Amino acid sequence: MKYTVQVKVMPLKELLDPQGKAVMGGLSNLGLKAIEDVRIGKNITLQVEAPSVDEARQVAEEASKKLLANPVMEYFEVSVAE
Amino acid sequence: MKYTVQVKVMPLKELLDPQGKAVMGGLSNLGLKAIEDVRIGKNITLQVEAPSVDEARQVAEEASKKLLANPVMEYFEVSVAE
Repeated sequence: MKYTVQVKVMPLKELLDPQGKAVMGGLSNLGLKAIEDVRIGKNITLQVEAPSVDEARQVAEEASKKLLANPVMEYFEVSVAE
Repeated sequence: MKYTVQVKVMPLKELLDPQGKAVMGGLSNLGLKAIEDVRIGKNITLQVEAPSVDEARQVAEEASKKLLANPVMEYFEVSVAE
């Protein structure tokens, strides 16, 4: 069966996010003062062929650990939809 | 009240995603053959000060249209959590 897996990769909360800070400056210049913080990460959509949800999740977690996320600077969250 | 808003910005389905294709090559080299497609976009977390969920969503949609997403190449989805 084919599963759609979303992997969210975000900068660790302890670290500065210069890209987010730059975007926040831009939003402020556009007059959107209600936005108080911006953090920018990646969203990765995987199509996984697997016999079950659990195995699809396992494949996505392995991919995240090995390639998609850099654990020194980022954390990831995996969510599976059928 | 302060709301956490997630904005997902992904390349339009009609378009090629060269970054995703490159990552798919990498995953294939790592032996993760179960992954059949990869698409990579951005995930942006906003902290919005607003009187209601609806207004927080409105601010985030305005920010997405004006700055966060390029409508020629990308679509966006906004979701609000309290």
